[in-house]
Amino acid sequence: MRIDFWYEFASTYSYPAAMRIEMLARDQGVALRWRPFLLGPIFAEQGWRNSPFNIFPAKGRNMWRDMERLCARQKLPFHRPDPFPQNSLAAARVALALADDERPAFSRAVFNAAFGLALPIAERATLVTILQDQGFSPSHVLERSSTEEVKNKLKRENDEARRLGIYGAPTCITEDGEMFWGNDRLEAALDWATGIR
Amino acid sequence: MRIDFWYEFASTYSYPAAMRIEMLARDQGVALRWRPFLLGPIFAEQGWRNSPFNIFPAKGRNMWRDMERLCARQKLPFHRPDPFPQNSLAAARVALALADDERPAFSRAVFNAAFGLALPIAERATLVTILQDQGFSPSHVLERSSTEEVKNKLKRENDEARRLGIYGAPTCITEDGEMFWGNDRLEAALDWATGIR
Repeated sequence: MRIDFWYEFASTYSYPAAMRIEMLARDQGVALRWRPFLLGPIFAEQGWRNSPFNIFPAKGRNMWRDMERLCARQKLPFHRPDPFPQNSLAAARVALALADDERPAFSRAVFNAAFGLALPIAERATLVTILQDQGFSPSHVLERSSTEEVKNKLKRENDEARRLGIYGAPTCITEDGEMFWGNDRLEAALDWATGIR
Repeated sequence: MRIDFWYEFASTYSYPAAMRIEMLARDQGVALRWRPFLLGPIFAEQGWRNSPFNIFPAKGRNMWRDMERLCARQKLPFHRPDPFPQNSLAAARVALALADDERPAFSRAVFNAAFGLALPIAERATLVTILQDQGFSPSHVLERSSTEEVKNKLKRENDEARRLGIYGAPTCITEDGEMFWGNDRLEAALDWATGIR
């Protein structure tokens, strides 16, 4: 039993999802593949050059309040990033430059930086600090993250997300192809993966 | 403790919400005000002349599948209305023509017709059947629903929804003004109303 967990470092609801999915999945014996991708190109295809939360102000206002309440209940620190959305390209490349089993902890650290501490995750200095904290050699990983190989890997992941019909983050996809969109659907996705309908 | 439950008869996620909110609210001792309104004018203000689920096809595809899964788990019948969205103006006026304590059962019957049976809720014959089943005199209620008084009442409700910043349905608003959007936030809204943060 396995779920692909598609997430975006600039996506608000990917933050609480990334912070809780591993424990939920372990409880139900479901394996996870952590798949960072970029929503920007997908939004651009439907004519959005910004986050829908900025394009539709009423929706954005409620999302920020909802995030505050959600994080408070989940006991997660929350500070609104400024500007929003952050550019998540560099962080996504670093995540893909790491090994599969190194990616979850690094990703949670990026989310904590972005939404817990409101640090600028597009900046090299932020990524250096996170990599150091995680015990990596920052210069080595950052160099690898800007190779053609890693750039192409991210492009292929984005193509795959588009092919699957992903339009938001986080999105869970089960092995039999069911799509579950949103932090609110983690439990339903895991139930589906374990055969609970 | 009270919650205003804002709902739209054409809104997919208002259906499972309307079917479960009363039991949830009773369990927590929260009173409900059932407030039907129209999303069309609110969508039009942000440039949408159709449901966002039709405007953004990937989102729409997943919403229909999500509704199927959700209704199956909630043991609710589900048939996709055609066309979608249905025109909900007449049903909303009838709901407002009824007394406050008659509105919940009528509203659930409209949702069952719209999404459980895929009946055309814009048609007088459908509303007549529902009203008959509920023990009302259909001609009497329908006549009242097209008075200026009821038309203006719906306009005032729509103005109030816009003033509150409502941008989707269902939306729960607590007495202290917290907004909770979506069927996924009924529990959070009720918790907030009872002081659980």
